[in-house]
Amino acid sequence: MHNMNQQSFHFSPIGVARTPYPQKFGIARQSGLVPAAQAVIVLNAQFNADTVRGLDEFDYVWVQFVFHQTLDEGFSGLVRPPRLGGKIKKGVFATRSPHRPNAMGLSLLKLERIEYGQNIKLYLSGADLLDGTPILDIKPYLPHIESKPDAKGGFTEEHREVLNVQWLPESQNKGLNQETVALIEQSLAQDPRPAHQHGKDKEFVMQVSAYDVRFMCIQQTVYIISVTSTTDK
Amino acid sequence: MHNMNQQSFHFSPIGVARTPYPQKFGIARQSGLVPAAQAVIVLNAQFNADTVRGLDEFDYVWVQFVFHQTLDEGFSGLVRPPRLGGKIKKGVFATRSPHRPNAMGLSLLKLERIEYGQNIKLYLSGADLLDGTPILDIKPYLPHIESKPDAKGGFTEEHREVLNVQWLPESQNKGLNQETVALIEQSLAQDPRPAHQHGKDKEFVMQVSAYDVRFMCIQQTVYIISVTSTTDK
Repeated sequence: MHNMNQQSFHFSPIGVARTPYPQKFGIARQSGLVPAAQAVIVLNAQFNADTVRGLDEFDYVWVQFVFHQTLDEGFSGLVRPPRLGGKIKKGVFATRSPHRPNAMGLSLLKLERIEYGQNIKLYLSGADLLDGTPILDIKPYLPHIESKPDAKGGFTEEHREVLNVQWLPESQNKGLNQETVALIEQSLAQDPRPAHQHGKDKEFVMQVSAYDVRFMCIQQTVYIISVTSTTDK
Repeated sequence: MHNMNQQSFHFSPIGVARTPYPQKFGIARQSGLVPAAQAVIVLNAQFNADTVRGLDEFDYVWVQFVFHQTLDEGFSGLVRPPRLGGKIKKGVFATRSPHRPNAMGLSLLKLERIEYGQNIKLYLSGADLLDGTPILDIKPYLPHIESKPDAKGGFTEEHREVLNVQWLPESQNKGLNQETVALIEQSLAQDPRPAHQHGKDKEFVMQVSAYDVRFMCIQQTVYIISVTSTTDK
């Protein structure tokens, strides 16, 4: 047997994800929670149409990726899942925290369509990926093997409140297209605030696509204060 | 944007899997198909009890691992899934083939119990892992996110025949314990033969735990010819 402590495996990305999330704050905490969050995985040119033949027969795909932005931050054995209000600690292997011994992520995304060109592009929805995420693998979702509706989900079964979202009259959302409105509303309904800042009377700014979205929360409602284009600055 | 083609990420195993499968031939083609296949993941000593706190609240865990035995064999863009009889080609990203651009596997195993000691041990069932498999990550299965019973499963929805298993009278299975009998029967029912050798009147030998299992198939029945201890040789 090899000495596992000395072994190291090298993986190179097969492509990159393009998503509406230029920064971590505001990204849904699991895949599928924000259906309006579209991602495009652009495969490297070496992976031609053959490599995805038959993938369009599947509704969902597993995306295995690198938590590249937190890669250098290391991990703790214990983490505080946001779902538990940030007060209770769970072991890193009992959570989907990005701060892991191997900073690998796993997301289940809905495959909307495949575009064939010089680079194959997979159009996906329900994304929880940072823009620029390096992709390590794509695998089909196997419902007869991987669907376990009666499985115990531990602390993740705790009731998660979804917030109401209100646009303040002065928030100037007139110029936004329908997809962006849906993306903003679904993202905010998931309550992006850090658990320790709940209950504080504070404004937050979340970046969605090319917009800064300013909002604040009062009880179970998010009020959108303004949406400004980041490219206008 | 970084040039993704030049990037490489290094991952070190967090532990190793001990399984009844010393060789590839006979391993179930997906996790969960052979419930009697027990695996023990032995975490490296640096990962103490804290790192798995709360994991026992979950029924299933994702095991991310390296296909270490086929790592050096590279990949093809097109593969012939055994389920399709070996005659039809699908893209590598539309299959769970071990021959992938990044030789990473993903298995959903049932968590039976956790043993706390100098090394944490996770006892799992439904394993489809080679003995000695390097483990990269353990993640909880999130049923509210990852259970999609109505999802389309593409070609994997094709009818899979399960074979009948018969012990020939001279097969000397008297000394085997119940778990080993179940493991052998469940493994053979899945038809481990390569698709191109179906219909051939041929004996096969499969290694299960410390046994060589000789068998042959006639139509939809597997006949077990003999079970001999590999350590007696």
